[in-house]
Amino acid sequence: MAMFGAIEAGGTKFVCALGTSPQDLHARVEFPTTSPVETIGRVAAYFEVQTKHEPLASIGIASFGPVDLNPASPRFGYITSTPKAGWQNVDLAGPFRKTFNLPVAFDTDVNAAALSEGRWGAARGLETFVYVTVGTGIGGGGMAGGRLMHGMLHPEMGHMRIVHDWKADPFPGVCPFHGDCWEGMASGLAIEARWGIKGQELLQDHHTWQLEAHYVALGVVNLVCTVSPQRIILGGGVMKQTALFPLIRRETLELLKGYIQVDEIIERIDQYIVPPQLGDNAGVLGAIALATDVAKG
Amino acid sequence: MAMFGAIEAGGTKFVCALGTSPQDLHARVEFPTTSPVETIGRVAAYFEVQTKHEPLASIGIASFGPVDLNPASPRFGYITSTPKAGWQNVDLAGPFRKTFNLPVAFDTDVNAAALSEGRWGAARGLETFVYVTVGTGIGGGGMAGGRLMHGMLHPEMGHMRIVHDWKADPFPGVCPFHGDCWEGMASGLAIEARWGIKGQELLQDHHTWQLEAHYVALGVVNLVCTVSPQRIILGGGVMKQTALFPLIRRETLELLKGYIQVDEIIERIDQYIVPPQLGDNAGVLGAIALATDVAKG
Repeated sequence: MAMFGAIEAGGTKFVCALGTSPQDLHARVEFPTTSPVETIGRVAAYFEVQTKHEPLASIGIASFGPVDLNPASPRFGYITSTPKAGWQNVDLAGPFRKTFNLPVAFDTDVNAAALSEGRWGAARGLETFVYVTVGTGIGGGGMAGGRLMHGMLHPEMGHMRIVHDWKADPFPGVCPFHGDCWEGMASGLAIEARWGIKGQELLQDHHTWQLEAHYVALGVVNLVCTVSPQRIILGGGVMKQTALFPLIRRETLELLKGYIQVDEIIERIDQYIVPPQLGDNAGVLGAIALATDVAKG
Repeated sequence: MAMFGAIEAGGTKFVCALGTSPQDLHARVEFPTTSPVETIGRVAAYFEVQTKHEPLASIGIASFGPVDLNPASPRFGYITSTPKAGWQNVDLAGPFRKTFNLPVAFDTDVNAAALSEGRWGAARGLETFVYVTVGTGIGGGGMAGGRLMHGMLHPEMGHMRIVHDWKADPFPGVCPFHGDCWEGMASGLAIEARWGIKGQELLQDHHTWQLEAHYVALGVVNLVCTVSPQRIILGGGVMKQTALFPLIRRETLELLKGYIQVDEIIERIDQYIVPPQLGDNAGVLGAIALATDVAKG
């Protein structure tokens, strides 16, 4: 049986592993994200050792973005305009393709997480769904009609503009580009700036939870109206506060005001807005899934 | 060569035609939308006459919505929760399937318009794009990865929530569900309620154009962030004011603030936000395209 290599490229760390599924994921290692040369070098060294023991059919890379996913582009497989110092215009897929002479699949970390949740997790059997991570920032990916969403660039979702009632809430938001976009109002960094606590820590009193749920729901509603997903998976550090889920569901219903008359929303919202099932492995398993698909050709 | 039947089902009129392409569209007729029984009866009578002269391979229906597009649903092919009196829960595809014993394709009017613009018009060669009509209301459809967007329901786009600065603009919007959603602020009905003129007429002074462009652009930006289309086609009665296009493009760039660093936006926005090319035939040609595809199976 073919074995696949996985790279989850994050702004803080790179996770590498070999495997074929959630039940078969091994040799997992992590490297801190330092310079591109050093980080890519360490990952390549890892795969050189591993492939001596175990030949690979392909490698999948799930990367932080923005990235170039256009196979016709000269910069296909690059990280492009990231604010992360030193990582602008870095060819991430190329070195692995050349060194190991293997098919290398490349996508965003959030699209990869969506792919793995669709194959093995919270979106099994669905063709059109969205995965949003509410962590330090907000990012999103998904599948439409059974294919990962690419388009012009790739969906990023975090920077959509949302309703902001300045009178009720004078907080200006933290996005360096847009101030009070979705990420600017509802990300972990926004929580930290607003309340002086980490998003992963908490929101102890009712008001902080309610406000966070309101802003998350505003983005959810716009995803319902634009992508019309069959399910919305909310992951990331902030969403580890699982008490947010019922509040977000209630706010979503309140904001939709009965306009979308489908059972998924009206009767089964508990199964519509859900946490991920693969936890911290969604990204690296997504890379395995990407590798599996590219090996099939 | 196979011939296809087309039905564009609108809230005001039904348009029927036969054809295979924009260069071959004939026998076009229009019926006012009255009761379902009467309207469907007239359309069926039209096809009975036509099919005596010219056998059809299939029929395509491009319908106002919301509609049920789920082939597994018992109400597949129905118009569902429309506010249009008498048209709730009407089986639109079924009667034609039964009467003519032909494959019948069924989709939203805006998805059909997107399909025809993709095949013959403003989005030729693209896999992921959006078609938005800014008319009496606002509706949208599109393709993602080469497939029409369906998902849970279908994208509708008009009811996404957008930024509304109440202090700068105290207009409350006209949407009976949401007040100041996209449709509530930027549709033809909103223009009429705000300025006392028809959206198709106009917006003579600078301020009215600017404000309309601003609200249209707010929705465009959210489509860029969620669907990441390779192109956005803006049609409908309001957009016949073509002077809106440069203003909408400028507002879109202003709202994105350089976050989306791709040539399509940065260098070629004139080709990114564009009018339709098939004009008033986009819907009926979309029905032809739907029929063509369903005949291929």
